Amino acid sequence: MYSFEENIRKVEPYVPGEQPTGKVIKLNTNENPYPPAKGVTEALESMNTDLLRKYPDPTADILVKELADFYNVGEEQVFVGVGSDDVLSMCFLTFFNSDKPIFFPDITYSFYEVWANLYRIPYTCKELDKNFEIVPEDYYGENGGVIFPNPNAPTGLYQELDKVEDIIRHNPDVIVIVDEAYVDFAGESARSLIDKYDNLIVVQTFSKARSMAGMRIGYAISNPHLIKCLNDVKYSFNSYTMNQTSLVCGVEAVKDRAHFEETVHKIIETREWAKEELAKLGFEFLDSKANFIFAKHPEYDAKELFEAMKKENIYVRFWGSRRIEQYMRITIGTKEEMETMFSFLKRYMNK
Amino acid sequence: MYSFEENIRKVEPYVPGEQPTGKVIKLNTNENPYPPAKGVTEALESMNTDLLRKYPDPTADILVKELADFYNVGEEQVFVGVGSDDVLSMCFLTFFNSDKPIFFPDITYSFYEVWANLYRIPYTCKELDKNFEIVPEDYYGENGGVIFPNPNAPTGLYQELDKVEDIIRHNPDVIVIVDEAYVDFAGESARSLIDKYDNLIVVQTFSKARSMAGMRIGYAISNPHLIKCLNDVKYSFNSYTMNQTSLVCGVEAVKDRAHFEETVHKIIETREWAKEELAKLGFEFLDSKANFIFAKHPEYDAKELFEAMKKENIYVRFWGSRRIEQYMRITIGTKEEMETMFSFLKRYMNK
Repeated sequence: MYSFEENIRKVEPYVPGEQPTGKVIKLNTNENPYPPAKGVTEALESMNTDLLRKYPDPTADILVKELADFYNVGEEQVFVGVGSDDVLSMCFLTFFNSDKPIFFPDITYSFYEVWANLYRIPYTCKELDKNFEIVPEDYYGENGGVIFPNPNAPTGLYQELDKVEDIIRHNPDVIVIVDEAYVDFAGESARSLIDKYDNLIVVQTFSKARSMAGMRIGYAISNPHLIKCLNDVKYSFNSYTMNQTSLVCGVEAVKDRAHFEETVHKIIETREWAKEELAKLGFEFLDSKANFIFAKHPEYDAKELFEAMKKENIYVRFWGSRRIEQYMRITIGTKEEMETMFSFLKRYMNK
Repeated sequence: MYSFEENIRKVEPYVPGEQPTGKVIKLNTNENPYPPAKGVTEALESMNTDLLRKYPDPTADILVKELADFYNVGEEQVFVGVGSDDVLSMCFLTFFNSDKPIFFPDITYSFYEVWANLYRIPYTCKELDKNFEIVPEDYYGENGGVIFPNPNAPTGLYQELDKVEDIIRHNPDVIVIVDEAYVDFAGESARSLIDKYDNLIVVQTFSKARSMAGMRIGYAISNPHLIKCLNDVKYSFNSYTMNQTSLVCGVEAVKDRAHFEETVHKIIETREWAKEELAKLGFEFLDSKANFIFAKHPEYDAKELFEAMKKENIYVRFWGSRRIEQYMRITIGTKEEMETMFSFLKRYMNK
């Protein structure tokens, strides 16, 4: 063994999630089944590629302005990054520098634990209750910060704003991050609380409701002071992260409010119909408000069912981890994709 | 003051470099004055934007393959990232986990110090000699890793490969990173040493010779083991960084070898001519092998000259820091841009 091996960072070997190509029904990574706004295609078609020889605007000005306009906040209240993963990671690095543990749910987005480990941030996971609900009181204790998704993943459960506010109000001494990747399919955003609480950051993404997972765009909305802190940290070690195409495509995606509302509406409609179909087949599931459903069947083993679906080129997500061994997460695809899945399930279950 | 302020990361406030728009001669950030390969424009024009709704391939397979093909190495020897800043930062995080200090030159790319601080890596800066040359013997001592650019920035000085190899050979116990952002304008790459030394990583970028600063693409070439370590760390905390457009544009840029060679050739030609012109005006400068020239004038104060040029909409780079107070860094633009600069300088100096 070489001596330099000792200095190489040890990490859990990770296998990237399945990204099958070809003719498959892909309901495993919560992508949007509808294409992005037409303006995105037009922006790429007409792009002046001579611009690419120059560094992109580090302030991402055009995109920040468009988002500020859309959400009716000031430009100095918006921070953008390379997907909400980048934005959240930057929030951990910027705001979670306490010796006290940060709090997040035990069943939640798996990267919270990863970033806490990466930045050596102590953390405590708060168990969801037996209905997989977040218990606000669990987040009252002394801590170094709080983060949770709303709706939560992979449960899909949405907490009404008064419960979210309760957690924020009980934590005035630390930063509270509400990760709203799926909120457009759910209900009211905590954005409306930003003027009221100086410790609140809301993070959203272009990967779900805006059909742009492939462009990697996420953003945070907060008060100007916290946004400045994020930008200061970002600029201090990597100024140019958002590439030129992300900026122009992002602007076009935000501009097309009609397309955004229409696709969100279709997905919600398909989700509610899918719940009825799942119920008819005897599935048990949480009342998801996201673009996926977290479901189990009392008579069928989740892993076996997952494998059987995969053989039919229908990909859903299965973890097999503690408390969720019998659950699968099914992304809401188009009505046609869901129909294909249901006809397979009916055949499989002889119904 | 709120209590949460205590937990906010303290950083040096940073002002992003000037990115003037409008009709200016921009010789301040070492961008390429020529547009990227034509295939890049065609790729964007014909892009299937429905792909954008899906997450990009986390392995960046198509781009990795194209680079492996171009450089005649195995696919498992290439790592790609969001600009060489991202690649270098990932190398620091992955390989520099020793209690001993890493070594890099005192006058060099300013981000080495930033990443070392960010990841709490101890470091020692080794002074360039009075001719601004790296002294290989300075890098022989016990250390936690070595990194230097070749050509160095902002000096532009290129070290012949035997000097580079000398540093690598004297450091078998640690990882040595050769940052070759500007090597295409200079001479032989340390890529040729990769099979010989198991501790060597070579980092390059699309931002200079490939005219793609705006797309944010960088890469590392090394042996399969070290590339796997980089990918393991990357996947462990942020799997999807390269967006879909970077992947397809990157492929097209690499494919067009003729365009790449032609623009590099033109820039070298303009650089050598610019040296003659600078000499005629009495400038003193290092024999740069990069796409910029680091120059001073014995009779004119650098800061004053820099300001005077800026008033004429000619932007060059000036730092005013220790040992380089009287130097300006002039990026090589098109012949026409350089001519405009020289006619201003002649007027300014009454020559």
